[in-house]
Amino acid sequence: MSTQGLILTLSCPDRRGIVAAVSAFLAERDCNILDAQQYDDPETGAFFMRVVFAPDGHAADALREQFEAVATVFAMRWSLRDPAVRKKVMILASLSDHCLADLLYRWRIGELDMDIAGVISNHPASTYRHVDLGDLPFHHLPVSKATKLEQEAEVWRLIRDTGADLVVLARYMQVLSDGLAAKLEGRCINIHHSFLPGFKGAKPYHQAHARGVKVIGASAHYVTSDLDEGPIIEQDVERISHRDTPEDLIRKGRDIERRVLARALRWALEDRVLLNGRKTVVFTD
Amino acid sequence: MSTQGLILTLSCPDRRGIVAAVSAFLAERDCNILDAQQYDDPETGAFFMRVVFAPDGHAADALREQFEAVATVFAMRWSLRDPAVRKKVMILASLSDHCLADLLYRWRIGELDMDIAGVISNHPASTYRHVDLGDLPFHHLPVSKATKLEQEAEVWRLIRDTGADLVVLARYMQVLSDGLAAKLEGRCINIHHSFLPGFKGAKPYHQAHARGVKVIGASAHYVTSDLDEGPIIEQDVERISHRDTPEDLIRKGRDIERRVLARALRWALEDRVLLNGRKTVVFTD
Amino acid sequence: MSTQGLILTLSCPDRRGIVAAVSAFLAERDCNILDAQQYDDPETGAFFMRVVFAPDGHAADALREQFEAVATVFAMRWSLRDPAVRKKVMILASLSDHCLADLLYRWRIGELDMDIAGVISNHPASTYRHVDLGDLPFHHLPVSKATKLEQEAEVWRLIRDTGADLVVLARYMQVLSDGLAAKLEGRCINIHHSFLPGFKGAKPYHQAHARGVKVIGASAHYVTSDLDEGPIIEQDVERISHRDTPEDLIRKGRDIERRVLARALRWALEDRVLLNGRKTVVFTD
Amino acid sequence: MSTQGLILTLSCPDRRGIVAAVSAFLAERDCNILDAQQYDDPETGAFFMRVVFAPDGHAADALREQFEAVATVFAMRWSLRDPAVRKKVMILASLSDHCLADLLYRWRIGELDMDIAGVISNHPASTYRHVDLGDLPFHHLPVSKATKLEQEAEVWRLIRDTGADLVVLARYMQVLSDGLAAKLEGRCINIHHSFLPGFKGAKPYHQAHARGVKVIGASAHYVTSDLDEGPIIEQDVERISHRDTPEDLIRKGRDIERRVLARALRWALEDRVLLNGRKTVVFTD
Repeated sequence: MSTQGLILTLSCPDRRGIVAAVSAFLAERDCNILDAQQYDDPETGAFFMRVVFAPDGHAADALREQFEAVATVFAMRWSLRDPAVRKKVMILASLSDHCLADLLYRWRIGELDMDIAGVISNHPASTYRHVDLGDLPFHHLPVSKATKLEQEAEVWRLIRDTGADLVVLARYMQVLSDGLAAKLEGRCINIHHSFLPGFKGAKPYHQAHARGVKVIGASAHYVTSDLDEGPIIEQDVERISHRDTPEDLIRKGRDIERRVLARALRWALEDRVLLNGRKTVVFTD
Repeated sequence: MSTQGLILTLSCPDRRGIVAAVSAFLAERDCNILDAQQYDDPETGAFFMRVVFAPDGHAADALREQFEAVATVFAMRWSLRDPAVRKKVMILASLSDHCLADLLYRWRIGELDMDIAGVISNHPASTYRHVDLGDLPFHHLPVSKATKLEQEAEVWRLIRDTGADLVVLARYMQVLSDGLAAKLEGRCINIHHSFLPGFKGAKPYHQAHARGVKVIGASAHYVTSDLDEGPIIEQDVERISHRDTPEDLIRKGRDIERRVLARALRWALEDRVLLNGRKTVVFTD
Repeated sequence: MSTQGLILTLSCPDRRGIVAAVSAFLAERDCNILDAQQYDDPETGAFFMRVVFAPDGHAADALREQFEAVATVFAMRWSLRDPAVRKKVMILASLSDHCLADLLYRWRIGELDMDIAGVISNHPASTYRHVDLGDLPFHHLPVSKATKLEQEAEVWRLIRDTGADLVVLARYMQVLSDGLAAKLEGRCINIHHSFLPGFKGAKPYHQAHARGVKVIGASAHYVTSDLDEGPIIEQDVERISHRDTPEDLIRKGRDIERRVLARALRWALEDRVLLNGRKTVVFTD
Repeated sequence: MSTQGLILTLSCPDRRGIVAAVSAFLAERDCNILDAQQYDDPETGAFFMRVVFAPDGHAADALREQFEAVATVFAMRWSLRDPAVRKKVMILASLSDHCLADLLYRWRIGELDMDIAGVISNHPASTYRHVDLGDLPFHHLPVSKATKLEQEAEVWRLIRDTGADLVVLARYMQVLSDGLAAKLEGRCINIHHSFLPGFKGAKPYHQAHARGVKVIGASAHYVTSDLDEGPIIEQDVERISHRDTPEDLIRKGRDIERRVLARALRWALEDRVLLNGRKTVVFTD
């Protein structure tokens, strides 16, 4: 669904009157609700909401200031964002460039509404000579066991200095240290090339082949310090057969990976993904 | 998602303040919103909403009376229903009993929360000797070209006299006359054994085989006087190959048909399906 | 694809001339090949083949005797079967009867071409009062930790005495002892209610809910003494969302389980599943 | 599955001894069969086969000459191809470049084993400035109603002069004349952005939106003079909801189109697609 208007997302302990308070706030300001989705988690008693509304001339800043009072009453964790102000995304890649190439293609044709803060790779720019990097800032940051600390410090400096809102590990293939993972909590999306929680860790397609599964998948998830255990945003699968070699799985997997990562990123860009403990609430379109 | 509380569904021309009015109405009565979904059709300017709320001791009848005022302001077409009062469903079947058997199974294990008003068939009860019809009223109403008028009159009498809210054509294989279709508009669900709008009419699996498609499907839709053109509620598909004979397609199709019909019926029972012209809005769980 | 003619399946170390030897054997006897599929495992050097042929008046027994010579040359593990002689299947069930009811339904309408040797349950026949067990031998064999040894001995006795070719654990929910698992190797099919290897063991839908996955699945596999690690025959999946409770997953899972189990059983009945170490080769139709 | 060895494909009227004759031919020359699939069409009595074999030092040309005798006996339509000799593919594109970009990406990373004879577009090269056309011959052939005849003559000249084996309409959006379609029969693959036979003709996503379907798809098919009626090679689908605008369908459709077209092309490159009247036999991997 096309997104016009401002986007309000919020989560708080569930109690009576939240929707009424939010919709009254908007109605009093003649802001028409264009789209709204909500979810009450019956297990945790947490409430989640995403509202898109026409601001009727009100500035986002002013509304944000005024909404503070409502938010306080309900102890909300919230955000009110103008999608016209694009999110900045830092992309990290490694040798396999199918996700990188795909994200850049989707960005160019307007499918991913974002600004790209830059591309970081542990391989030189020449690795991507067939991908149009255009004028995007490219940072070659090689990494080894010995230099990991320094390299991550530089990665972090780039993320911070560019003001990147989101970080995407587009088959980056380097495990982030606990420290960096902690700094990026809730805003770093990784694509894992297996149907988690099956086949965690390295070479998942080889694992899948050895186990003889009949379906393979990929999972986009938020990075946490617990490897391959972060909140899952999106997953998808494809059928395979005994005829498929590990190389066939890698090939079929590329298609799943790029579409799963692109979906997860688009939803994150549109404020559709809310954290719910170690799970996510995804208000899909 | 489990449905507790009362279910309010409504549609009306979109304008400011609908959500605020509805949520204020509920908040003033201490009714907590448990689930809410809405949709604005950008093409027609129609607004659709489904709200589940805890009634906080209020009787459904009283709330209905009080809500009338809100509904009038916004010209709503609406319903406020207590899911504890089960809908009555009349099932029509013919020779193929896979959908009938499946619906009865799901009903018995509590997956379909409904009362069955009866089973009507143009074949005798002995056709279903392996299906446990239990104490369900069974009506054998044979039909031929010559007797169609009388038979349909009898079908209609049974629907009316039992107060059936919904009618399900579980592979009934008889085209309803325009007259009966009109009487049942918006509450008669048919399962068509093709991926509409492909392969309308008779023998769709044979048509699909002849065309050499690689995927087949089934469609659950509301019946209208325009054959196979009614609003689609749900569709699903399965891959096939050149090896599949028409008989294989019929076999694979049975699986698709019964799950598509069961989903559509469950959504209709839970007031998740709203009519939007010749299309549907489906607030899935 | 409809199966007429005799079915020859074989596996052996790959070397030149296998196909030529087999097809010459058939051609010399004027047996026309109706369907043939083969697979060379590049990793193990094992060769697998399934041939359906018109016997041109030859008796299966005679052909079997004559084929012995070919089989010996290539060190084949093989079978030549007349599908007109139906396999005998023993079904084990427990409280949840959706797989049992589904298998019986498919059997009755001719979708599963088998003889049912009997139904064994650790619950009494009254548990299945809505399922038409007809004249099928029903064996109530309650089990507890203390009586497991005796119960399994009785299960085995029934399997042996009825000459059951296949055993189906239709949500039997009892872990077979290593001893019984060993006796049933390669002919006992279990349906596990998760997308293996994710969520092994008990309550997989609750595990899936807790992990927040976006897709759930079911796996049909041969039982081995290594719990949930046997060769996978078939898997399938369905999308879920954050809205789905564990009960919703159980409901959605029932649909996946019954179709996955039915497919696996049908393929086993048609000699389409060949063991390849801890994996399977499935010559699907 | 990785393809080594030579590929023999054939179709002929079914009769006894085809497989025996082919496998004896190979066995006599010590050619080991690596993969073989066959299909008997029970309706037409046509037989189809694809064999991959290790040539054991024999030259493809010599084998071709010797096989002629076998082929004549059975009236085969056949081909014996060395996959090391890559097929030449001419790609035709128009404004939407997602399929073009995707095919080039897959070609560069070795997923599509082909030589690209050139890219023809009715739009100038600058249209694709973000796609790396590299050194590929690019031909800008604008077309209008008045110049269609001349433009098609030029298209045909390029296909003929480059010796292109296959032609891919990668969202070319121009209907080929009957004359050109006839010349390219059986070797021109089009991607149609609908789940054929639903929504033939122009603007299928708008048609799908108007009809309110719940699943959309794309179809790769051989071009014939009968628009959107050619033999279907591959189809795939994706779920949509009432929330999806026509623009959303176009976006979701791009993903389906590019994977369906890539699959169909890869299968055609590997001689996996055989024509069977107005249908196809696809020996998938």
